[in-house]
Amino acid sequence: MPWTIDDLDTPAVLVDLDKAEDNLARAQAHADAHGLKLRPHIKTHKVSYLARRQIELGAVGITCQKLGEAEVMADNGLDDILLTFNLLGAAKMRRLVELARRIRLAVTADNAVVAGELAEAMQAAGLVLPVLVECDTGGERCGVQTPEEAVELAKVIDGLQGLRFEGLMTYPAKGRTAETNTWLEAAIAALARAGLEPAVVSTGGTPDLYRAQEVRCATEHRPGTYVYGDRYQAGLGVGTLEDCALRILATVVSRPTDGRAILDAGSKTLSSDTLGLDGFGHIVEYPQLVLAKLSEEHGHVDCSASNARPRIGERVTIVPNHACAVSNLHDVVYGVRGDRVERAFRVEARGRVQ
Amino acid sequence: MPWTIDDLDTPAVLVDLDKAEDNLARAQAHADAHGLKLRPHIKTHKVSYLARRQIELGAVGITCQKLGEAEVMADNGLDDILLTFNLLGAAKMRRLVELARRIRLAVTADNAVVAGELAEAMQAAGLVLPVLVECDTGGERCGVQTPEEAVELAKVIDGLQGLRFEGLMTYPAKGRTAETNTWLEAAIAALARAGLEPAVVSTGGTPDLYRAQEVRCATEHRPGTYVYGDRYQAGLGVGTLEDCALRILATVVSRPTDGRAILDAGSKTLSSDTLGLDGFGHIVEYPQLVLAKLSEEHGHVDCSASNARPRIGERVTIVPNHACAVSNLHDVVYGVRGDRVERAFRVEARGRVQ
Repeated sequence: MPWTIDDLDTPAVLVDLDKAEDNLARAQAHADAHGLKLRPHIKTHKVSYLARRQIELGAVGITCQKLGEAEVMADNGLDDILLTFNLLGAAKMRRLVELARRIRLAVTADNAVVAGELAEAMQAAGLVLPVLVECDTGGERCGVQTPEEAVELAKVIDGLQGLRFEGLMTYPAKGRTAETNTWLEAAIAALARAGLEPAVVSTGGTPDLYRAQEVRCATEHRPGTYVYGDRYQAGLGVGTLEDCALRILATVVSRPTDGRAILDAGSKTLSSDTLGLDGFGHIVEYPQLVLAKLSEEHGHVDCSASNARPRIGERVTIVPNHACAVSNLHDVVYGVRGDRVERAFRVEARGRVQ
Repeated sequence: MPWTIDDLDTPAVLVDLDKAEDNLARAQAHADAHGLKLRPHIKTHKVSYLARRQIELGAVGITCQKLGEAEVMADNGLDDILLTFNLLGAAKMRRLVELARRIRLAVTADNAVVAGELAEAMQAAGLVLPVLVECDTGGERCGVQTPEEAVELAKVIDGLQGLRFEGLMTYPAKGRTAETNTWLEAAIAALARAGLEPAVVSTGGTPDLYRAQEVRCATEHRPGTYVYGDRYQAGLGVGTLEDCALRILATVVSRPTDGRAILDAGSKTLSSDTLGLDGFGHIVEYPQLVLAKLSEEHGHVDCSASNARPRIGERVTIVPNHACAVSNLHDVVYGVRGDRVERAFRVEARGRVQ
């Protein structure tokens, strides 16, 4: 007898492997058609099996946000990793050196303090680490603020033993590919004048995945959420709700009033992320129901707009607002094809905050 | 040489054990003074050491929200547990029977479907499970809606082999102790007329911990957050920011502009919970800084209201909005006294969603 979704207890995180494969293949085909490399961000799934599938389908390597994620992925055979986070401190430098000894590793930096610490550690270890300058092209997070600052930091990196200036990296502002292009092209021109040609120009984000080629100078793109999709991305038009590969199976545990249903999935299962959306997820079987509020273990459902209302004990599936946050809450996700549970995946890089 | 906070990598979750002990002792003294039992909710810490300290200081038992949490606590010597969640399904019934065989266990129910499943499982196992009727006294989550419904469900439970009607439980609306009292007293009077005296009347929540005695019919209270405190509770006046025992140690990794600092602690470390507050935490060393926005791994700090601004590499400590959500994100928290790290605690019941 096959192991089916009905055999799973709730709440449980389901990953539709066919949908995930389709999402990966579609993105890779798009990137290939535009001569762009893909370096997927594994923060969305945190599962080495899916990282390997991304490589097998054509990705040049992976992106990690945390050293701990990169260590876990390296332990599981991923050997080309870009770490897109400013690293600081003796503990992280020791771990970085160990990691750099065993895989092809590159990192980013947006300031000279970080570059200095990286260089000292690498030089002492007799290694040379490729470093990309993180550029703030409108995303307003980390990153040097102007093309001139990018050149200045590239020169610092180029002048430090133990480091090699490798190129530019940005987490661009959503939908602003033209501005990103202008910013990066100005930086590249200024770098050329300084004799510092970037080998890599790396852009990111699933929202702009299917227009990544509009940043003409980009050599690679780092999408994350595209593997699963979620309610937020579907709202932006990147895939549909139907394409979403990650869903939460939940049970209706209470119907205290006609208009209210309570699910056994709250913020500990779905996260509190709204990403600006109303509600906390899309209930597939009852699209008129509103997942209006979350307690830690309770999903509060407003049934008032729906004639069809679920009974106590009934199971529903939820497309969450933000797939990455869901992955980070769960030790295990279940890989399914149709109704069949193919296997359980440990979310190996979950909770790696350092 | 002692192991100090400076030796910890960031981000890290610190638990000030002296502050936590003070928080526990203060609450227990209050409950003792009012003849009220405490049955702390372990969802806040999820650490068996702290659950045992709660018992040692005078709590009558603990509360868990999930079967998986109760199993972990039972494995670690906690032998009197109230499970305050409607349980459904064959998998959970099997586990519940195993748990009921080895500890003093009670559960709650707010509907006859749940009561029926519980009874069937317990009867087949030859056990009798105490069940409290969950009452919605204004919290608008789970719970029977009226005192009459409470009596009706109590009668159902009383009539089922394998179950024993044990009393009433509510997760009351914050600050509405008078209404809660009226509701519960009406239910108790109606139960008495039906010959069903409740042995336990259980109220909950840290916001009303220090006025729990105003619900005069309550026999026990189930506070959770009081062990740590957080920015939300401090805002309500339950403890101060200074009393908060759980803090996040983070590093400033970028200062892209004069007005912006970026920390290595984002929603994966602090959670996205606002609980209606502005910002995502209180920065102890720089109270004028605003933790305005979180990415998964980045804390976006608005420095514009502060003359004192942190440099790259500097460490800060953050009182989070919601301590329970933080606990659930981390595998390990560090028990500290002053600057000394006493030990690392595994957050044993973290991620137990089922």
